[in-house]
Amino acid sequence: MRRQPLITLLTDFGRRDPFVGIMKGVIAGLNPRALVIDLSHEVEPQNVRQGGIFWMQAVPFFPPGTIHVGVVDPGVGSGREILAARARGAIFLAPDNGMLGLAARRDEIEEAYLVRSRRWFLPRVSQSFHGRDLFAPVAAWLSKGLPLNKLGPAARSFQLLSLPRPERSRPRGAAAVRLAGEIIDIDRFGNCLTNLEIKDPARVLRIRAGRLAVKGLRQFYGAVPEGCPLALVGSAGLVEIAVAGGSAQEEWGLKIGQKIVLDLRR
Amino acid sequence: MRRQPLITLLTDFGRRDPFVGIMKGVIAGLNPRALVIDLSHEVEPQNVRQGGIFWMQAVPFFPPGTIHVGVVDPGVGSGREILAARARGAIFLAPDNGMLGLAARRDEIEEAYLVRSRRWFLPRVSQSFHGRDLFAPVAAWLSKGLPLNKLGPAARSFQLLSLPRPERSRPRGAAAVRLAGEIIDIDRFGNCLTNLEIKDPARVLRIRAGRLAVKGLRQFYGAVPEGCPLALVGSAGLVEIAVAGGSAQEEWGLKIGQKIVLDLRR
Amino acid sequence: MRRQPLITLLTDFGRRDPFVGIMKGVIAGLNPRALVIDLSHEVEPQNVRQGGIFWMQAVPFFPPGTIHVGVVDPGVGSGREILAARARGAIFLAPDNGMLGLAARRDEIEEAYLVRSRRWFLPRVSQSFHGRDLFAPVAAWLSKGLPLNKLGPAARSFQLLSLPRPERSRPRGAAAVRLAGEIIDIDRFGNCLTNLEIKDPARVLRIRAGRLAVKGLRQFYGAVPEGCPLALVGSAGLVEIAVAGGSAQEEWGLKIGQKIVLDLRR
Repeated sequence: MRRQPLITLLTDFGRRDPFVGIMKGVIAGLNPRALVIDLSHEVEPQNVRQGGIFWMQAVPFFPPGTIHVGVVDPGVGSGREILAARARGAIFLAPDNGMLGLAARRDEIEEAYLVRSRRWFLPRVSQSFHGRDLFAPVAAWLSKGLPLNKLGPAARSFQLLSLPRPERSRPRGAAAVRLAGEIIDIDRFGNCLTNLEIKDPARVLRIRAGRLAVKGLRQFYGAVPEGCPLALVGSAGLVEIAVAGGSAQEEWGLKIGQKIVLDLRR
Repeated sequence: MRRQPLITLLTDFGRRDPFVGIMKGVIAGLNPRALVIDLSHEVEPQNVRQGGIFWMQAVPFFPPGTIHVGVVDPGVGSGREILAARARGAIFLAPDNGMLGLAARRDEIEEAYLVRSRRWFLPRVSQSFHGRDLFAPVAAWLSKGLPLNKLGPAARSFQLLSLPRPERSRPRGAAAVRLAGEIIDIDRFGNCLTNLEIKDPARVLRIRAGRLAVKGLRQFYGAVPEGCPLALVGSAGLVEIAVAGGSAQEEWGLKIGQKIVLDLRR
Repeated sequence: MRRQPLITLLTDFGRRDPFVGIMKGVIAGLNPRALVIDLSHEVEPQNVRQGGIFWMQAVPFFPPGTIHVGVVDPGVGSGREILAARARGAIFLAPDNGMLGLAARRDEIEEAYLVRSRRWFLPRVSQSFHGRDLFAPVAAWLSKGLPLNKLGPAARSFQLLSLPRPERSRPRGAAAVRLAGEIIDIDRFGNCLTNLEIKDPARVLRIRAGRLAVKGLRQFYGAVPEGCPLALVGSAGLVEIAVAGGSAQEEWGLKIGQKIVLDLRR
């Protein structure tokens, strides 16, 4: 028996308007067997990088063959292309705006096509709601087994965002190696996700962000008294700054983009 | 093989409370095969017209036979009737408060019944949560094929809201026809939906709303430089006022109900 | 034919981050046949009691065999246990933090186990996202028929929260019995749910909360003129304070935890 096809939706549409429901209606009309899972619809409007960070966190936990649809699309209606790609055992469908780059490295992308064939779109395509008119029907057709290469020509080049790379330095005379990174996202709890990946947590001496400074990495949020700040390797495998039972964002005034300095024992 | 039955939910219940989940539990208990899609649960509390506008946008994109349930119900527990109607290939279930009127014109309503037979309700009916006790079970029974006329007597009269009609005038000496409409909804992006439907976009000379004035209709949001206002025919087929990469609502102080004037070349 | 298995999710994860979607991805990977219903993800961060109140409202309306997963988990990563219990025809999976107590009384719990066997977890278990690494896969295995006693040893003791019990008094010389309770939750509409259960609504003389005082219980919200306060037996079977067409919370400044006094005719 064929597996039930799985489609995820990631947009900046919010939940107030019926836009997401409409996309699901289009999908259900074309493939009622598809299971549709919402990743998030609260991506900050037109914040492509944030959408990519959500994909980075989520994609590894979905079964093979999942079709990930990402509609954060400041260029809707313009000449921007739409990309369909196979990578890491999954299919990705998104505007060619770089979002895919945070879910898969260039060398992990097995094939990529420009979505141009109107045959798989709704009969009338608006210039302002491609989620409904293009992404939803194309995802539904893919979930019915349509091969990627039926969507349009192979994509020769496309954008791939990447996270800012931490800078490594060795302050003069110091017994430590210093990594300079930044806060890349802040979750609902006020936990601050950074772009720092640490292979050997035992080597971490201290972490600083703004006025906040903590020593070493902890194992879990409750490892320090309530209200105290800490750093740990979060669920995405990246260093995270948190406050036990509180919000690091609020209590320490942290912001996305803020610099983080982490010292490692040599 | 019979199609998987499809039910949509549109309420003002919000997502904080478990009310929507409870409705889905009731439906799943009666018909686990039904696929339930959320249209929105963020209708402004008791704003029946807004619910109807969401239906207006969404209904055309759902497959035939979909059961649309709308619970925006200021009169819950009072003597207000509940209406079940067949129109435009779909079934609608909602309080008799006019919401159906924005999804279907009177002449499109093929049959309508008052939902009165307690046989299809939960055994205990509260006076404050008919979504759970009446709408959910009735929708589940309809999704199992229950004919509408088993729900109660034919509805002889019922309410149907309509959008305010634009006013057409010809200012003295002007070479233009003037349409006066209003903003009927504002979406998450701050785009302002109006009640103006334009057959021939090329005839549009200018649009004004409050301090904002733009010339002609554009094809898509990005057709003007970022931060600039524009008007276009939105995804619902109605004139929409937007700001490229921004929020027309915030940047121009626009509000639902605000007057819009559009001049057409004669 | 076996029923489609049903899993509900109740968390404080919010909807902005992809956490809930990730849990659904894990479940779909292990049991694509499971139907997953969201109860709420807007529980106030780490507010275990609020999660329990949502379960109290929702659980009775789900079909037998439903698996209720509750992840409001201030102690994630610490030594706290996870509990799997059978009660009231359903299965509950949650941290051992007492939440179960608001969904089932101690004497209704038929069996309870500590979830310890790593065999049913994801291969790599983080210390900060047990929703993904433990709760989701265990729920999926349970939905495939895994017996509870395969999860770990029987739980000899566990926490069970309960609502504050109303105090009953008979003010000197009064012809009334007085119940003193409190507001335990406030819903989206500003309706205030109390911990007062009334067998005989006709005996209720008056209800007071802060500056607000109303006489007797009404049948439904619209039983008083718009803008007027009222009390009624809400959909959870508990006394609720509301304002017709308005918000009791906003208009009367009511808060969770606020005292309520209700006088009953003797």
